[in-house]
Order: sequence, then C-alpha cells, then structure tokens
Amino acid sequence: MVDSVFMAELSWPEWQTKVEAGAIILLPLGATEQHGPHLPLNVDVILPTAVAESVARHIGGLVAPTLQYGYKSMPRTGGGQSFPGTTSLDAQTFSHTIRDVIRDMGLHGARRFVIINGHFENAWPSVEGLDLALRDLRAEGIRDVKAMRLEYWDFVQRETLDRIFPGGFPGTELEHASLIETSLMLRLRPDLVDLSKIPQESRANFPPYDIVPPPPGYLRKSGVLADARGSCAEIGQWLLDDHVTMITAALTKEFGR
Amino acid sequence: MVDSVFMAELSWPEWQTKVEAGAIILLPLGATEQHGPHLPLNVDVILPTAVAESVARHIGGLVAPTLQYGYKSMPRTGGGQSFPGTTSLDAQTFSHTIRDVIRDMGLHGARRFVIINGHFENAWPSVEGLDLALRDLRAEGIRDVKAMRLEYWDFVQRETLDRIFPGGFPGTELEHASLIETSLMLRLRPDLVDLSKIPQESRANFPPYDIVPPPPGYLRKSGVLADARGSCAEIGQWLLDDHVTMITAALTKEFGR
Amino acid sequence: MVDSVFMAELSWPEWQTKVEAGAIILLPLGATEQHGPHLPLNVDVILPTAVAESVARHIGGLVAPTLQYGYKSMPRTGGGQSFPGTTSLDAQTFSHTIRDVIRDMGLHGARRFVIINGHFENAWPSVEGLDLALRDLRAEGIRDVKAMRLEYWDFVQRETLDRIFPGGFPGTELEHASLIETSLMLRLRPDLVDLSKIPQESRANFPPYDIVPPPPGYLRKSGVLADARGSCAEIGQWLLDDHVTMITAALTKEFGR
Amino acid sequence: MVDSVFMAELSWPEWQTKVEAGAIILLPLGATEQHGPHLPLNVDVILPTAVAESVARHIGGLVAPTLQYGYKSMPRTGGGQSFPGTTSLDAQTFSHTIRDVIRDMGLHGARRFVIINGHFENAWPSVEGLDLALRDLRAEGIRDVKAMRLEYWDFVQRETLDRIFPGGFPGTELEHASLIETSLMLRLRPDLVDLSKIPQESRANFPPYDIVPPPPGYLRKSGVLADARGSCAEIGQWLLDDHVTMITAALTKEFGR
Amino acid sequence: MVDSVFMAELSWPEWQTKVEAGAIILLPLGATEQHGPHLPLNVDVILPTAVAESVARHIGGLVAPTLQYGYKSMPRTGGGQSFPGTTSLDAQTFSHTIRDVIRDMGLHGARRFVIINGHFENAWPSVEGLDLALRDLRAEGIRDVKAMRLEYWDFVQRETLDRIFPGGFPGTELEHASLIETSLMLRLRPDLVDLSKIPQESRANFPPYDIVPPPPGYLRKSGVLADARGSCAEIGQWLLDDHVTMITAALTKEFGR
Amino acid sequence: MVDSVFMAELSWPEWQTKVEAGAIILLPLGATEQHGPHLPLNVDVILPTAVAESVARHIGGLVAPTLQYGYKSMPRTGGGQSFPGTTSLDAQTFSHTIRDVIRDMGLHGARRFVIINGHFENAWPSVEGLDLALRDLRAEGIRDVKAMRLEYWDFVQRETLDRIFPGGFPGTELEHASLIETSLMLRLRPDLVDLSKIPQESRANFPPYDIVPPPPGYLRKSGVLADARGSCAEIGQWLLDDHVTMITAALTKEFGR
Repeated sequence: MVDSVFMAELSWPEWQTKVEAGAIILLPLGATEQHGPHLPLNVDVILPTAVAESVARHIGGLVAPTLQYGYKSMPRTGGGQSFPGTTSLDAQTFSHTIRDVIRDMGLHGARRFVIINGHFENAWPSVEGLDLALRDLRAEGIRDVKAMRLEYWDFVQRETLDRIFPGGFPGTELEHASLIETSLMLRLRPDLVDLSKIPQESRANFPPYDIVPPPPGYLRKSGVLADARGSCAEIGQWLLDDHVTMITAALTKEFGR
Repeated sequence: MVDSVFMAELSWPEWQTKVEAGAIILLPLGATEQHGPHLPLNVDVILPTAVAESVARHIGGLVAPTLQYGYKSMPRTGGGQSFPGTTSLDAQTFSHTIRDVIRDMGLHGARRFVIINGHFENAWPSVEGLDLALRDLRAEGIRDVKAMRLEYWDFVQRETLDRIFPGGFPGTELEHASLIETSLMLRLRPDLVDLSKIPQESRANFPPYDIVPPPPGYLRKSGVLADARGSCAEIGQWLLDDHVTMITAALTKEFGR
Repeated sequence: MVDSVFMAELSWPEWQTKVEAGAIILLPLGATEQHGPHLPLNVDVILPTAVAESVARHIGGLVAPTLQYGYKSMPRTGGGQSFPGTTSLDAQTFSHTIRDVIRDMGLHGARRFVIINGHFENAWPSVEGLDLALRDLRAEGIRDVKAMRLEYWDFVQRETLDRIFPGGFPGTELEHASLIETSLMLRLRPDLVDLSKIPQESRANFPPYDIVPPPPGYLRKSGVLADARGSCAEIGQWLLDDHVTMITAALTKEFGR
Repeated sequence: MVDSVFMAELSWPEWQTKVEAGAIILLPLGATEQHGPHLPLNVDVILPTAVAESVARHIGGLVAPTLQYGYKSMPRTGGGQSFPGTTSLDAQTFSHTIRDVIRDMGLHGARRFVIINGHFENAWPSVEGLDLALRDLRAEGIRDVKAMRLEYWDFVQRETLDRIFPGGFPGTELEHASLIETSLMLRLRPDLVDLSKIPQESRANFPPYDIVPPPPGYLRKSGVLADARGSCAEIGQWLLDDHVTMITAALTKEFGR
Repeated sequence: MVDSVFMAELSWPEWQTKVEAGAIILLPLGATEQHGPHLPLNVDVILPTAVAESVARHIGGLVAPTLQYGYKSMPRTGGGQSFPGTTSLDAQTFSHTIRDVIRDMGLHGARRFVIINGHFENAWPSVEGLDLALRDLRAEGIRDVKAMRLEYWDFVQRETLDRIFPGGFPGTELEHASLIETSLMLRLRPDLVDLSKIPQESRANFPPYDIVPPPPGYLRKSGVLADARGSCAEIGQWLLDDHVTMITAALTKEFGR
Repeated sequence: MVDSVFMAELSWPEWQTKVEAGAIILLPLGATEQHGPHLPLNVDVILPTAVAESVARHIGGLVAPTLQYGYKSMPRTGGGQSFPGTTSLDAQTFSHTIRDVIRDMGLHGARRFVIINGHFENAWPSVEGLDLALRDLRAEGIRDVKAMRLEYWDFVQRETLDRIFPGGFPGTELEHASLIETSLMLRLRPDLVDLSKIPQESRANFPPYDIVPPPPGYLRKSGVLADARGSCAEIGQWLLDDHVTMITAALTKEFGR
C-alpha cells in the first residue's frame, strides 16, 4: 500500500496510527458548479484538494475525502443556481455534513482539523458546520479540539497578484471561472480545460444586491464573471506555490511543527 | 476537453446538452469506512464508482460525483462505528444530501436517475433521500422523474458465485472487506491493497441482533467479517463483468435504449 | 390493579419500582401497513407486541407501548406506499420517536432496553433512533445504557422452517402477508383473518432494484408477496414458540438473569 | 373479519372502500403519562380511544391507531416530566407524527379528519402537526381536506358538571388523575384502577407560572392534581355519554351526515 | 450612555457586569398579529415589553430584545392566520429562537431567566423552547439555570377584573383586541389606537373545536373576539399596575431579592 | 392612528390595503451583538431599521419588524461569540425565521420584498432563508414573488468614503464598532453612544483564517476592530444620505415606481 496523504487510501490501522501521532486532518470543501464553457464542473473540487494534498505533504497531515457538493451558487460570485449542472446542497445539509464528519473523527481521536474551502459560497455554512461539530463534541466530553477554517485563495502574496494583474487586482469575488481558476486548472488538470471556449467577455458588473429570482440580464450568460483570457499554467504555478507555502506557514504557526 | 462520462469533468453546456438528450444520471453512493488492515477506507467509494463508470459508457449515461461519506457502519455488516477512520453521516444528513442532489438536477431538467449504492448501510437512508427528492420535485410541479436504486452486488450470476465459492456462497452480509471486495479492489486499485495484511480470520458469527454499545467480543478486531484469503484480480474481473453487464441490462429494460 | 407486563397498565410508582429493580424495557416497533386482502393493517403491531409480551413474562421485563406507525413500506418487502391504508412516517419522524422514548426512560432511570421490531422497513431507522438516543443520553451524562435491537423473525430454528417449508425456506424478505404472518395471526388474532380472501398468487419475483415511482406491473396487486395458502394456527404456534424461546435466551445471555 | 371501526383491524381494500365512501378518519392522540398511584400510565390513551370508538360507530367513521406517546407533561396540568414512567416526545417529533399520518392518508384519498386529543399538552403541537400536514398536502396538489381538532373533555354539558361537582366545577386544568379521569377509567377499564391508592390530597394550588427545573415543593408528590375521591363508574358514564353525544353532533354539523 | 433596563441599549461590558452581579434576564415574547381595525399589529410586542420594562426596574433586571414574530395565530384566540398582516413562525422556528437566545446567554453567564409571554399562542412553543435550551445547556455542563415562564395577563387581581367587568369576567381567551388589550394600548401607546374603528361586535361564540381550513362564518370578520367598547387608559393603568406588581412579587419570591 | 411606514403600527386592514396597492415590504435584519465599550448591543438593529424607514418613506414601502437576533458573530468581522451579551441564533433558526416571515406575507398577498441586512454575518443565512421562502411559496402555487437582498453599507459613494477616510478606505470588514458605525449611531441615537469609552486601539490585523475555539490573542479585547476615534454625527449623516438615496434608486430601478 502506498504511503498516501489521502486518508481514504489508508487502512484503518494506518489512519489510527497517524492520528494518534497527532496528524492534522485537512478537509477540502468542494462544489459541483458551473465554471463557464471552458472549465469542468469540478473546478472547486480539484483546486482545494490539490492545495490540501501539497500542504499535507509538508506538514505530515491527512487529507479527508473532499466534499463533492457545496452550498448553493450565488449569481454574483458563482453564476447562480440556474445554470444546468450546478448541483448544490441546502445550507443545513452542507453544515450537517461538516458537523458529522468532524464529530466522527473527533470521536475517533482526531483533535486538529483544517477546513480548506474551495467554493466561495461554502464559507458561511462551513463556519456553522464547524461550530455545530464542536458543540456536539463538547456534549461528548471532548473539549480539546482545535480547528482552522480558511479559503485557499486568501493565501497569496500581493506581489503575485501584481504580477498576474499588472493593471491592479480587482478582488476575488469575480474571479469565478476567470484568470485565476483557469490558470490553476491549466497547471493541475489541463486535460479538463478547453481554451478555445473561453468566452470573449469582459468583467461582470453586478449591482450591490441580490435579486431573486434573477431577472433577465442579471446573470452572466456564459457563467464566467471576469476575463479568463491570458490564463496559463505558469500563473497557476505561481498561485499554487503561494497557496501551499502560506497555508503551510499558517498551520505551522498555529499547530506547531 | 475529454468526452467524459463523469459529469464533474464536463462543462455546464456539455452537461445540459447530454441531459436534454435524455442522458441517465448515475449517482454512486460511497462511504469512508474501515475495510480491514489490508484495504483502504475508500473501498465503498471506488467500487460503485467503477461500476457506474462502466455502465455509463454502455448506456451513454453520466456519473454524478460519488458521495464520499455514507451512513453509519453497523457491526454485523461493516464492523461498526467504533473503528478509527470510519467517518459517517447521520441518517438525516445522508438522506438530505441525496434529496438535494436529485432535486437540483431535476430542477435543471434531468428526469432519469440511477442510484448505485456501494455501502450496505446506505441502502435505507438512500430510499428515504430519493423519496424526499421526488416529493420536493412534485412540489415544484415536476412529476415525470423516474429513478432506480440498487446495490451493485445484487447483480451477479449464480454461476459466478458458485465459481468463486465452490463450497457455497454464504450471502452478501458478511462480505465486508472479504473475498469479494478484496478481489474487486485487486482488479481496480491493486496499489491500494496490501495482501500481506489479510487477517487469518474465519467467517464472523454474529448473533441475530444488534447490541449497543457493542460489548467486548461482539466486534471483529480486524474489521474483516469473512475470509479474504484467496482474493485475486481475476475474481474481481468476473464480478465486475457481471455487475456491469447485468446493471446495464436492467437499465436498458427500464429506461429503454 | 393487575400485575401487568405492559408498562402502560402500571401506575408510575409501580413502573419506578420495577425499573429500579432492573427491569428490561421491551419496545415493540409496529406499523400500519397493508397485509393483503385477508389480513388487517395492524399485523405488524400485533405480532411484535405478542412476542414482547411473552418474552417480558419470562424475564420479568416491561413492554413499552408499541409504536403504531412505522417507516414507509417498500414494494419489495411490504408492497409499497401506494396501497391505501398503509400509513407511515418519514424516517426522521420514526427515528426521533425512538430517540425520544428511549431518552425519556433513560432519564427516569431505565438502563436496559430491547427494541423488538415487527416491520421490516423499521430496521434501519430504528438503528438510527437508538444511536441518537444514546448520544442524547451521553450528553445528559448517562453512559451506562445497554440496548439490544432485533427483528423477531430472525429468531427461529432451521428445523422449524424446514417443517413449515418442506420445499425449502425461500427467505424472509417476501414473507409479507404470506404463510408465516398469516399463521401467526391465526394463532394470535384469528378474528382478524379472513381465509376466504387469501389471493391465489404465487411468489413474487422482484428484480433486484427499486424503481420509483413504481411502474405498472412492478407492484403486487393484492399486496401479498408470497403464497399464504396453507397457513394455520399450529404453524403460528411453532413460530411463536421459537421467537419467544430464542429471544428470551438471547436476552438472558446478554443481560444476565 | 369483524366489521371494525378501528382501521387497524381492516384490510386495505376494506379501508379503501370506506374512505372512498367518505368515511371520516378519527385520530386519537394519547400519551404515556403518570396519573397518580391509582391509575395506569395509559389513561390518556384509553379515554380518547374509547370516545373515538363510540363516535365512529355513530357516524360510520374509522378510528386510526392512537398515538401512544404524547407531548411532554407540564407540572401544572399533568404533573411534569420528572415522574418516572412519563415518556414523552419532543414537540417536533409529535407534530411531525401527526403531519406524516394525515399526509399519508390524504395521499390515499382521505379528505375528512377529526383529531381527538386526550392529553392536555398535546393540544398545541397537534395544531402545528395538522397545519404542516395540510401544507404538505397542498404541495401535493390536494386542497380539499377538511379537518377538526378537539379536546374530548370540552364536550360536556354544564348540567353534568354541576351534578358531578355540586360545589362548582373548578375547571379542567387540574382534572389530572382526579375525579373526572378516575371516573371515566372506572367506567371503561376498572381493572386498571386501584381505588385504595387514591391519595388523600386536596386540590393543587399552582402559582400562575412555570418554573424550570421545578423546585422542591412546586410539584405534586403523588402526581394527582385534584381530589379523586368519590370517583365512580356512574359519573364516568355521564361524562362519556356527553362526550360521545356532543362530539357526534359537532361532527354531523360540520361534515353533514 | 443611559442606564437602561433594555440590554440592547447596554454595551457588552455593562451587560457582563450586571449579569455577573446576578441580574435576571426578562425575555418578552411578542407577535405580529392582527388586533382588529382599531389596533396595530404590534399589540403583542408592546404590552409584554412594557410589563417587562417596569418589572425590570423594580428588580434590577434586564429586558432582552422582544421577539417580534410569534407562533401562528389561532381562530379562537387570535383570529387565525388568514388575516393579512398576521405574520408568524412555525413552531419549530419559534421554539428554536428561544432555545438559541437562552442558550447563548447561559453560555455567557446568565443563570436566571424570566420569559414574559404576550401572545397566547406562544405559550406552548415557548415551553418547548425553554426545555430545549436547558437541555442544550446541560450538554455544555451548565446545570444551575433557573427560569420562569409566564403569561403576563395571568397576573391580575380578581377585584380588578370585577371592576372592569361588572357583569363578570368572561375569561382571557376571547380578550383578543378587546377591552383589556385596547385599554392597555390606550394607556401605553394611545397614538396607535383608533377608537373610531372599534367594531360594533358582541362577544364571539366559538364552538369548542378547531376546524381547518376555517369555513366561512367560523372566523370573526373584524378580528376582534369580544367587545372593545368602553376601553380607556384608566382601565389600562389598573391592569398594568396589577401585572407589574404581581409579577414583581412572584419574581422576588422565586429568585429572592 | 398615525400613518406609519412601520407595518407593526398599522392595523390589518391598513396593511392589506397598502400591500394590495403594491407596497414593497422591507425587512431589516439586525443582531444583538457587542459593539465595543462605547456602543450598545443593538447597533445592528438600529442602523438597518433607520435606513429601511427612510427608504420606505421615499418609495411608499412598509418596514416589517426588524429581526432582533442575528446569526453568530465571527471574530474577524464582529468580534466573535465569546463576548458576553452577543446573543445569536443558529443558522437554521435564523434562515427559518426569514423563510417563515416571507412565506406568511406572501400567502397574504405581498409580492415584493427587500431584505435590508444590518449585520455582516446575517448575509449568508439570509440568502438561504430567502431561497427557502420562495421554494415554499412555489409549493403553494405562488410564483410571482420578486425579492432583493442587500447589505446597506454597500450603498455608499466612493467620494463619501474618500471624504471620511482621507488615507484611503480600508474596506468594510473591519468596520465593526468603528468609525462608520459609531458615526451613524451618533447621528441616529447619540444617547446610546459613550464617546469617552472609545478604545485607543488601532486597526485589527487578523490572519486570513478562522480558528476555533479562538486562542488567546486572536480576539480583540475591546470588541472594536478598527479605530472609532473621530466619529461624528456629520459623518453619520453623509453615510445615511448615501445609503438611503442609493438604495431608493436601486429599488426604483428594480421595482419601478
């Protein structure tokens, strides 16, 4: 059996050994969500899983199976639920999944968790899921769990962004299926990217409010929220390097080495 | 972009095109569950996903992302929840996940679903999840969904079992981490099998009742419920052939071609 | 006041006295479900209650009020939900009922429980309900509860089945409203059996999958899944004797005498 | 098969025939609750079931299986949850049970329901359960259900109460395990009444508030809230006559004949 | 900053100081519910808040923010849900709100609570909410919370009612939008009362049952259940004096001074 | 009766008249949350309510009662749940409150809603609540609801921020209990602000992740996340003007006039 950082590839005695030795559990949160005509539905699964895998190698952690379905897509950050193929969970279902997963591993002895979110809309219900998990563990008499929760894209150097966006980084919100995600996919899974289908669209310009159901013209037709042209694997590598290095540093700072 | 049977690898317009053309959605149900010292925690993810993939190729279907966490393991069929690494969901969480996934795809136009279960304990909560999905879809005015739900191991010829178990097939319940699952893993992911760790254990002999919390001696120490010795990839191939052929036939019968 | 094994017939001081003396609580799980044209809707209430009553007499236990409504009927094991009169609960409602009942009795001092299931589809949601009950009791600081959970029909001798089915016992799944249940009813409540209405049907032959909503021809018209002809009270007595004797033995083994 | 008013004793075709002919479904709501040292735990099951049975005979209705467990007992009306043997459901569990039962029968064609409550604390969660049932049925496109909900003890003539309480009827709230319930039990199930154990207690005098957890002295030790001395079957008959006659009249008025 | 009895007007250190000194938290339960053509929708918010404010001044307590939405209105006590503007919560939502609020304050050190209900239909779901809160706090290891729960209108002297209703007080149930509530509003918020719109209606005469959906003629057209004519601020003052004096006395008795 | 924009101050016929004439319902979402030593716990109630009130006056809308309790405070945006006095709801409770309120008003004829959020952490669970409300309304056959959802602070001109922050606006996230909120409170409720207690703290510098439970040093001691010094009513007026003008414009654009 290979010595894998993916806990799914370990046998239970191997898992137990590592966890008893203090291995940190990294739980990537994905989604099945449209990412434009040029990217697959699993972008938000692949990216946080890849980040978690590399971080786990650095810190001797274990990557738990990535959640394949996430919280509902929003028009201003993910295109919205009306795109065919975007398949999401109610907030309660998503939060309870995290609660149950953390709780079970806590009952089995894990005490250190890092949730690595790869889908913007997962942020809040994962906060709730983690809060419920710790509440349930306290009810079981377990009070020494420590958990981090992060969005991987927040771990990037200003300089990297300046290199990628010479005109100024416009912020993460619209980076859906755009330059950043496309570049990371070109670095990690180029076989799943069809550059010929990148839409010739400029950056979306949403009003500062949600409107439901979304009226005609509110949604982006392609599902891409900003310009993806110019994406390349090299940019993806810059980003991945930052994500892995900086998350590793944060974990080392918080959990020690 | 490759032409994949995994919907996660399609872009949303590709998903839409296939679903509008009537593609059947196959949803594999997995688990993160101990499978003895010689098998990894993801056996119940790998096997139904592989079956679904092959069936999808035959019928032009689409495989939805496999649920990575399943319903709680039971001592008599999966070893029970006390094994470290076995990470499960409450019944409600699991059923609601299925409800949400089917509902969302139904709202996006999918009308034909096949749930391919790979973890014994998922059976009942997946029945409930499917029932809730169809109820919710009726509330949305969608009444023409048709869905199958099956355990893949029920699709095997008597003769195959006779070949594998010359002394008589003792039934599926104890085939946890045993000859059948080990052989399928040797066929599909030999890199994740460590034959040297197969326990020298005979078939478990459970009383016909559950007892909670499990008393000492009730659980199998290794997590293996029957003998795994003699497993080989060839047996795995026989089984896989049966599963794929017979499930394909059932789908063709129920959904037409 | 009679000295009853039914806790419902005791006053609260009597209940308290017995429970403090260590009386085991037996909770029968019933259903309101079609059982063909010759049997009433309460077969699954009457049978586990009768078994529980006899067992309770042997072991000095107390029978809690039987749950009158069970989890949803499935076509392959109970005919399915489409039969008028089959009145069922959602899985969550059913599981929560068991959780609440066990929890309350646990809070009042009961520590030993036996769930005696009389309706096939109740099996899984009762596992969940029991798990939730013990979780809630742990949160209340109560960690010494011990509980069994069983299906009464699993307690029968091979020889008894051979006597009843000289051609070989075909398995419990299709024994819905068939020879076994009809015979037990003839033994216990012959006034509720109308032998003249036993359908002239052979054994059902279901494919190994569920299909929802059930297509025409998938369901048995009568609601009977196997042949009920030949049922008699004597067979019912054989079965009842086995059930009571063997469950009593199991309880004595697990809980002591 | 007997021609029973209890739907549980009918076969499914018999149920269907009656419901299609317009039979009203009467659903009694019980409880498993202390009723002092002289009465059994099932008083609140027996009484509404008996009332429902008689009413059903008059109007050609069907009595659904009585809910055996009710909502939590309150100190001021039922003694409170701290009495051993009082075994209750959370409000959500109780409401969902009613929702599920009514919904299922509605899906099978029943359109006229009467909920006959026999446990004070059930009143509010049964209002909620009925509201949720009708909401769910509307979502299924069923909008012609009509339902009544009542407490059986509200159907009594002023003169009857004056005859029973020559000093003036002090109101129903404290009539827990007292003269009225004891008399009804003496009329219906004298075998379950132990007159020798009626406590020598006067009427409880609760402050106009709840206090949790109940402090010492707040609860009645015996569980009886008013004087039960003087109970007799004749009084029980008077009450039963009123209940049945007046509920029958109300049903006839609302549902026609 | 003013020294307010409303905790919402305190800073967090002020709140902490008062709670650590033992301040009782008073939580008023309101509703947004029709109160006839002459009263606003917030009667059930204003009245318990005013009572709580005065009581808090007497006992040095803190008034938590009043719940603005209550449990569903019933026809016999509040007119029913069919009146436009009556905006209510499901029982679970309402109970969970109370659970969460009490739990959070308990986690922050509050140990003494008084729920002051101002909307009849809130009574039962607030009992449940309080029970769930204390259960959750026990799971957190907090077992020394003491809570009262009351309806403010129950705190009135017989003599006051006799003065107001010289013909005899007909009971609180129909006092919806009638003499008592109108007088209290004239005392507290005369600007929100339009005496010219008091309907010329006599006392409602409901049958002793609920019927859903309410048939024509079952509901009061105006939403007023009894006569509101003759309301005046002086009567409101009498009532308010009683409410405040008697609730203060009860709190002093239970919690000490 | 005054002609109020607060629906709580209207009688039900007045509410009905306005809603039938097309009045937009504005629902402010508040919180009971620490805002440092110089501000009260109800900042997040007062601010969105004031904005909603002014907007309602401009567009002829109705302000629904503000939710007094919000979703849990997060350390990086609101200080976190560990501050005494911060009293919050679970995500499900909060989302269900919004669902129920919108659903009920939808059933009474309202078709146009604007949710005006005043507490950062409410954003996501209010998205969910609104989604659930519209789902429930569709199940009731109501499909023509249109709703906006916004955070009021997003409606501000760049120039205003530049005037307030001559050194550059550092973003809304840390504006908790800081210059912006303090100024708005000085404009709206100066009686609740204690300028002498503004902490001498610089801007918080959080790492880009959550950590639970928060370790020592992670939280801000005062609860203030950025500098509040320099707050004044004039700045509050500038902001309020922007909020009202720009939200009014957005509503007019989306809903017409």
